[in-house]
Amino acid sequence: MKQNRTDQERAINTLRFLSVDIVQAIGEGHPGLPMGCASILYTLYTRHLRHNPKNPNWFNRDRFVLSGGHGSTLLYSMLHLTGYDLPLEEIKKYHVFGSKAPGHPEYGHTAGVDATTGPLGQGFANAVGMALAEAHLAAEFNRPGHKIIDHYTYALVTDGDLMEGVASEAASLAGNMGLGKLIFLYDDNKVCIEGSTDLTFNEDRGKRFEAYNWHVQYVNDGNDVEALDTAILAAKQDPRPSIILCRTHLGYGFPTLQDNCVVHGAPPGWDELNAAKRNMAWPLEPLYYIPEDSLTFFRKALSEGEGAQRAWQISLDVYKNEFPELANELMRRIEGTLPEDWQTNLPEFPADCKGLAARNASGKVLNAIAKKLPELFGGSADLAPSNKSWLEGCEAFSSENPQGRNLHFGIREHAMAAMINGIAYHKGLLPYGATYLVFTDYMRGAMRLSSLAKLHVIFLTTHDSIYVGGDGPTHQPVEQLAGLRALPGLSVIRPADANEVREAWIQAIRNHSGPTLLALSRQDLPTLDRRLVGPAAMLQKGAYVLRDFGHKTPELILMGSGSEVHLILQAAEQLSAEGISVRSVSFPSFDLFEKQDASYKEGVFPSNIRKRIAVEAGVSFGWERYTGLDGLTIGVNTFGSSASAKDLVRQFGLTIENIVAEAKTLLARK
Amino acid sequence: MKQNRTDQERAINTLRFLSVDIVQAIGEGHPGLPMGCASILYTLYTRHLRHNPKNPNWFNRDRFVLSGGHGSTLLYSMLHLTGYDLPLEEIKKYHVFGSKAPGHPEYGHTAGVDATTGPLGQGFANAVGMALAEAHLAAEFNRPGHKIIDHYTYALVTDGDLMEGVASEAASLAGNMGLGKLIFLYDDNKVCIEGSTDLTFNEDRGKRFEAYNWHVQYVNDGNDVEALDTAILAAKQDPRPSIILCRTHLGYGFPTLQDNCVVHGAPPGWDELNAAKRNMAWPLEPLYYIPEDSLTFFRKALSEGEGAQRAWQISLDVYKNEFPELANELMRRIEGTLPEDWQTNLPEFPADCKGLAARNASGKVLNAIAKKLPELFGGSADLAPSNKSWLEGCEAFSSENPQGRNLHFGIREHAMAAMINGIAYHKGLLPYGATYLVFTDYMRGAMRLSSLAKLHVIFLTTHDSIYVGGDGPTHQPVEQLAGLRALPGLSVIRPADANEVREAWIQAIRNHSGPTLLALSRQDLPTLDRRLVGPAAMLQKGAYVLRDFGHKTPELILMGSGSEVHLILQAAEQLSAEGISVRSVSFPSFDLFEKQDASYKEGVFPSNIRKRIAVEAGVSFGWERYTGLDGLTIGVNTFGSSASAKDLVRQFGLTIENIVAEAKTLLARK
Repeated sequence: MKQNRTDQERAINTLRFLSVDIVQAIGEGHPGLPMGCASILYTLYTRHLRHNPKNPNWFNRDRFVLSGGHGSTLLYSMLHLTGYDLPLEEIKKYHVFGSKAPGHPEYGHTAGVDATTGPLGQGFANAVGMALAEAHLAAEFNRPGHKIIDHYTYALVTDGDLMEGVASEAASLAGNMGLGKLIFLYDDNKVCIEGSTDLTFNEDRGKRFEAYNWHVQYVNDGNDVEALDTAILAAKQDPRPSIILCRTHLGYGFPTLQDNCVVHGAPPGWDELNAAKRNMAWPLEPLYYIPEDSLTFFRKALSEGEGAQRAWQISLDVYKNEFPELANELMRRIEGTLPEDWQTNLPEFPADCKGLAARNASGKVLNAIAKKLPELFGGSADLAPSNKSWLEGCEAFSSENPQGRNLHFGIREHAMAAMINGIAYHKGLLPYGATYLVFTDYMRGAMRLSSLAKLHVIFLTTHDSIYVGGDGPTHQPVEQLAGLRALPGLSVIRPADANEVREAWIQAIRNHSGPTLLALSRQDLPTLDRRLVGPAAMLQKGAYVLRDFGHKTPELILMGSGSEVHLILQAAEQLSAEGISVRSVSFPSFDLFEKQDASYKEGVFPSNIRKRIAVEAGVSFGWERYTGLDGLTIGVNTFGSSASAKDLVRQFGLTIENIVAEAKTLLARK
Repeated sequence: MKQNRTDQERAINTLRFLSVDIVQAIGEGHPGLPMGCASILYTLYTRHLRHNPKNPNWFNRDRFVLSGGHGSTLLYSMLHLTGYDLPLEEIKKYHVFGSKAPGHPEYGHTAGVDATTGPLGQGFANAVGMALAEAHLAAEFNRPGHKIIDHYTYALVTDGDLMEGVASEAASLAGNMGLGKLIFLYDDNKVCIEGSTDLTFNEDRGKRFEAYNWHVQYVNDGNDVEALDTAILAAKQDPRPSIILCRTHLGYGFPTLQDNCVVHGAPPGWDELNAAKRNMAWPLEPLYYIPEDSLTFFRKALSEGEGAQRAWQISLDVYKNEFPELANELMRRIEGTLPEDWQTNLPEFPADCKGLAARNASGKVLNAIAKKLPELFGGSADLAPSNKSWLEGCEAFSSENPQGRNLHFGIREHAMAAMINGIAYHKGLLPYGATYLVFTDYMRGAMRLSSLAKLHVIFLTTHDSIYVGGDGPTHQPVEQLAGLRALPGLSVIRPADANEVREAWIQAIRNHSGPTLLALSRQDLPTLDRRLVGPAAMLQKGAYVLRDFGHKTPELILMGSGSEVHLILQAAEQLSAEGISVRSVSFPSFDLFEKQDASYKEGVFPSNIRKRIAVEAGVSFGWERYTGLDGLTIGVNTFGSSASAKDLVRQFGLTIENIVAEAKTLLARK
């Protein structure tokens, strides 16, 4: 879709000034990027992006990520102009409670927003994940003559994105994976908040991306539509991921504030804005001015988008005829439903005193589920043999072998998390990422966005406590469970035995409206005899009574998660042998328990039973919600140390003897 | 120090096999790196590293960071052989409780270990921080003809380090800052845990570092001592940071396991080890064999180190004569003591209903302290104007201006945290790093190590709650305070007004045995009238009674931190007007409170007062430790949203009205 030069200029200014009027009118926000990048978005949306504003979820649309999410008004303006369900009245309410135009774009909240962005580097890595999803789905579903999955992933990325480590990690992987349909437009404006980027960012960016095996191009004037167009065309042709370094100007057109860092995050003021308008021959009135012809031009996206989707639908119908089973599967994947039989034949683990490591049980369950759910797609940050995260009988994904379902993320935890977010944004796949629990510290920036954007991703973490042993405190998680439980929307599950592991996986697969983290032991855990204790399926409740020893009304409640469940069971048994009535509670998940109604909660933890002990091989922080002022906690409230697990648990009192002794002291109190 | 070829081979094999005997004997650990990198460490320690084994803390020693901390036995062997206080008996207890030879090297635990490493990428960035400290201190203290601060910083880095984003960030900064005395030896062994590095890491590493403005060299055989030596010599001459890509072999010399990923983290077995020994003409007996001549050779480090330090001491004596004041200051900085008057003339803020933002108060206090403490050295991850972290009247650090005390970290939070750790390891400076509280998520990997290694660093964080407003949930911290409070050893302080901000800074400066995080408001906070409430200096206790409204024995305790302290005070006043006796508690720091004795704690929170309410603009997770089963919490337990602060606090019930209403309901209960 092309315009003559004058019309084009007017359309770009429509976009530009609409974006900045919003900021100036509300008196807050980020005008610098929209002024500088209006031509880039214009070129992309009007000449390249295949999308359907009336169906923002059209599966085969090109994806667009505004990685510098602070430039949101530019995106909102474009979405409004091209006909998405985003009325002008709504974007005028930028920064206002409940508006569809929040300060940074939010996926699921605003039609046409493909990713929640703002924290820098995340959108960059999300886009890599989206392109990875596209490449894999294309390999899985396309057949000769039938390109059913075939789209580009674009992102507008900024200096901040390129500086963030998560982007470096993802860029290296994108090059390694040869994600040729990934096209990044880099807002190379040479300004950051503290001043010129030269203060801190004088690396040769182009050369760096060449080193990652990317296709690198330069556009010397970020307002040169033809040059941008040519570069995007070349990027589409090149088999490597592409980055186009577009020399832009922050706050382009502001007479005194162009290239000034203050205009990154503050309105320019009416005088400055009006002067910019005058210089570009733009009317000062009305505010939010949208010339009729520009709107008409942008709105062509509606018919073009409809046409594009219709053409795809026709191809899909042909495909359905030729490959009905494959097409059915694709439809299921697009809808995101689970096959009816997915839970059949999952492993049941017989009672066993020796048992097996939670990570090993997880490997078995994951593999059983993966046979039923071809959408399971993931891997580890170079710890697959330890995490037991490999899908047996499946190949590894690579540029030569995009149908592979196992992902090698390398030692790049943060990019892994951000990329599986990108896969989840894309849809059609159910991604997981694996590492040691302690290294979730590297991924929190991305995990927060998994939660905020309600993405169906699974974090498979192993080596969940000081039982790691000899590798020492750098590898022994202590505070991670507490820190992750504090994150709203992340479901954290620490199963106690192999059957709870199965239930945890079931929960993780079912929890389609948010991320789930599984915290799994490295070491063997006994498999409980379920004839003696509550059923493992009760894991879904978050906490459940394993067994009441003695009277139904206990004097004491012992609770714990994971490996410590076995300790409290034995301690309870021992205490009951001494005539004390004890309830034992398996407590794999705080968040699942908090979802239960008051009567269920009261049933597990009767209010009047105040002698309560929580045992967990980690910091006790947070357990006091359940133990109260009259209970106590037994945990690991300092860092661990390099030693055998046996020595460590003795050191930290994670022994039956200590629990029994503490229980007696507690019962004797008052 | 050079040897003939045979002796040299024997010395290297001494190092190599000692390192692996330790692993094989204990049956756990990481033999692959020591086998492959023995020659590298040999070359570095015997030909270049200026160190004094009898005084591992000699200030002007070269620093060495084993960034791939899993190769610890190689370092332990070298430390033993060169005469550090690390007896063979101790390193035989590798992985054993209490041993000086933990699985990964721990700073402060083992003499000669310059940094706690293991989580990949951290050591890399720590070393960049050390070189930065050296460059700055040299600029501050050296005078023409007097190079008192003059040492190199070396690190052995691995594939994993290069893949981690934190290393990319730090590498870009090192290039920007022109840290020419930084020399990295890269264990380029082409193997990671999941297989060949080509699976995931086929980028052109050398080119990438060239793009960062580094000096890049290749050594094709990591066992070629002369080539390594020549490269290190060239690296010392080059004004840029240097990386030497040394082609090594994981498990070099193992007949069947060389270059096999399994030998990264598991003993090779006696057969394999013995076969390697036979092939290298190494005696199978005794285990831990150290030929006398090799030991004698390595132990020359003792006399050389003593000589090097003595020569330095002589220069220092001359310097003391010529620059007595400067020398005194240097001595103080080396000792790490504070000047006696550092607390005089800190700002006192008068009572003021409007008050000022905690971040603004912090800017004033920081600047006042910085005038007294020239060791304060830090900056922001591109948010200095927002964080109020700039030292006024001081310049920015740069390669041309290394005496600058303000650091521009760029948008690289993780490297910032890891680099300030490196500065703290180095000693002589008191580093701080600033960003928004929400972006501590990007730094947790490094912050954990600040805590574990007990480093005196300060994290200055602002925009501490949903009061961020329009920027929305991506920029509004919610769970961060809880997550950080869970981290053992990190002191987390959220002051309530400008005078508490001053006290928080005093605490952060005094807390020399660990990191402190300040969580500061973006918005104005009233400055409390201290004639009416408890003194701000009580912040040091973590929690303190602000004021008892009504009877001394309250019916209700209201507690809160930061901006919410003003809410609870007003709510308490309102309740007391209705005849209810209420205690108000300012609770800026959980960890400081937990350090108090039982009677102080009981004084603030009498056990029999069970009606308690905690109010904080963040998740309530963790507050139940103080509110118990009979209290309640008012917080922000979901993500925030893009809106005015006024709308948000109403939404989340952070209002006087709501607190009063909740209090009445609570008091009416049972």
